[in-house]
Amino acid sequence: MPTFVQILDFIGTFAFAISGIRLASAKRFDWFGAYVVGFVTAIGGGTIRDVLLGVTPGWMTNPIYLICTGLALLWVILFGKHLIHLHNTFFIFDSIGLALFTVVGVGKSIALGYPFWVAIIMGSITGAAGGVIRDVFINEIPLIFRKEIYAMACVVGGTAYWLCDLLGMQSYACQVVGGVSVFVTRILAVKYNICLPILTGGGEEEEGKE
Amino acid sequence: MPTFVQILDFIGTFAFAISGIRLASAKRFDWFGAYVVGFVTAIGGGTIRDVLLGVTPGWMTNPIYLICTGLALLWVILFGKHLIHLHNTFFIFDSIGLALFTVVGVGKSIALGYPFWVAIIMGSITGAAGGVIRDVFINEIPLIFRKEIYAMACVVGGTAYWLCDLLGMQSYACQVVGGVSVFVTRILAVKYNICLPILTGGGEEEEGKE
Amino acid sequence: MPTFVQILDFIGTFAFAISGIRLASAKRFDWFGAYVVGFVTAIGGGTIRDVLLGVTPGWMTNPIYLICTGLALLWVILFGKHLIHLHNTFFIFDSIGLALFTVVGVGKSIALGYPFWVAIIMGSITGAAGGVIRDVFINEIPLIFRKEIYAMACVVGGTAYWLCDLLGMQSYACQVVGGVSVFVTRILAVKYNICLPILTGGGEEEEGKE
Repeated sequence: MPTFVQILDFIGTFAFAISGIRLASAKRFDWFGAYVVGFVTAIGGGTIRDVLLGVTPGWMTNPIYLICTGLALLWVILFGKHLIHLHNTFFIFDSIGLALFTVVGVGKSIALGYPFWVAIIMGSITGAAGGVIRDVFINEIPLIFRKEIYAMACVVGGTAYWLCDLLGMQSYACQVVGGVSVFVTRILAVKYNICLPILTGGGEEEEGKE
Repeated sequence: MPTFVQILDFIGTFAFAISGIRLASAKRFDWFGAYVVGFVTAIGGGTIRDVLLGVTPGWMTNPIYLICTGLALLWVILFGKHLIHLHNTFFIFDSIGLALFTVVGVGKSIALGYPFWVAIIMGSITGAAGGVIRDVFINEIPLIFRKEIYAMACVVGGTAYWLCDLLGMQSYACQVVGGVSVFVTRILAVKYNICLPILTGGGEEEEGKE
Repeated sequence: MPTFVQILDFIGTFAFAISGIRLASAKRFDWFGAYVVGFVTAIGGGTIRDVLLGVTPGWMTNPIYLICTGLALLWVILFGKHLIHLHNTFFIFDSIGLALFTVVGVGKSIALGYPFWVAIIMGSITGAAGGVIRDVFINEIPLIFRKEIYAMACVVGGTAYWLCDLLGMQSYACQVVGGVSVFVTRILAVKYNICLPILTGGGEEEEGKE
């Protein structure tokens, strides 16, 4: 029987894959292309993290991510037209995935002996880098660099995790606080449309490094 | 004296490099840029595979791929105008490369002890990921996500390899059947313009994951 | 107290980060997005090199690169409008960074036992690949594939390093000659607007590899 964390992982993977598949669909990708984009959205962040940490990417040890992406593709093929009505549901699922992936990334880095500032970055990469690869594949500027707080929610959650650890809280409690911090930050950011300031003034000419 | 496989490897590398160099040329890259794009098209898939598998990329152990890309660049500089007449020849060469790279990727993964579903993915990455990097570099949506069957031919070939292995066939025979499956699938797909269905219905709004 | 090389490293990182942040600003990225692009411009080349060499990326062992990028972002936020007047200063800083990163990349590869042709490529990746990732993130064709000599300066410097080593010169002297070669090549290329030839004739139709 799957554990609670495994269920959350499945939900998060499914939501991330759906997001990739839908954006691929908007660009008229074929089924295969949409599947690849969905899969990379779901596992891309964790893969970059694992390559940087020097360990085998998680999806290479368990076919569940491939299967989950396949179910997501099937869902879009069958119920694509009705997805818009489920927009809020998928937003919640996506936020669950973001929270869980961040916490997993932080925890894995800590377990491998890295300092917390590395772990926070790895948590953010786990949560947000898949979406960056997705946007590169569909030839768009990555959304997370311009829209509401997304990767910053991972940084907030990773920092909360760290503070709990500093306070001597148990590993499990740190993870719960970290994950909830990501989730709440993300929900609040979208609900109140909280954005970081746009950077201006540095780029009237595009001649920095060539 | 080079073996038969080494000759096929050289032909495949040359064809992949030519494809990258020609697309770079269409975007008015300079010689250096065209060389880099050609090189990355040829070795990019194998490099991603080897990074994921945790081994040293093959091109770092043998300068033949650098030399082969140099010859491909020289060929385009000298005979560029006549390349169009050779279109069918390069299509055959490219399909040979696709078949060989796939089989090499599957075989290397098996030899490192990975299960077959990982090996099939690694074979497909070896064959098709170089073209994805190429298209990202020239700022286009990767062709393999939208055109005739390309990476799917790798999946077909990897699966054929697996079935042969299940049937107890010898390693060499599995490789031949796998490679021929890739080659024939690709040739038939182009000859009869076989495409996968376009995915529709999931992307009228682009608001999945942000 | 920081060594001379550490000071050069800081200057180079700062200049590379500024270049990423300014281009992100021109695309209206938010502060977080600009920070990420600046950071990746600064450490991206070294990270790809270290992943290929199979060692832990340098920025994961020392938070100085994160701090340096933060200072670069602060600089652009505070003094963005005045950056244009400093264009020549940043060009010199960027060239210092290019020279130092190249020499560091060559030296690290040699120390790990790789042959010189691999080391020259690793030096070039260290110097130039960060700018390629930056341009992919802002959805532009990488500048180094089309503008004045940039990555070629790394190849020149790496080759000079190699020749000095062949002549039996000491490691330190090889590094100085290599770095100065990169710097001078880059300065001369921009001063006299030296470009490599544009590749033409290979791309009237875009149908190489699909």
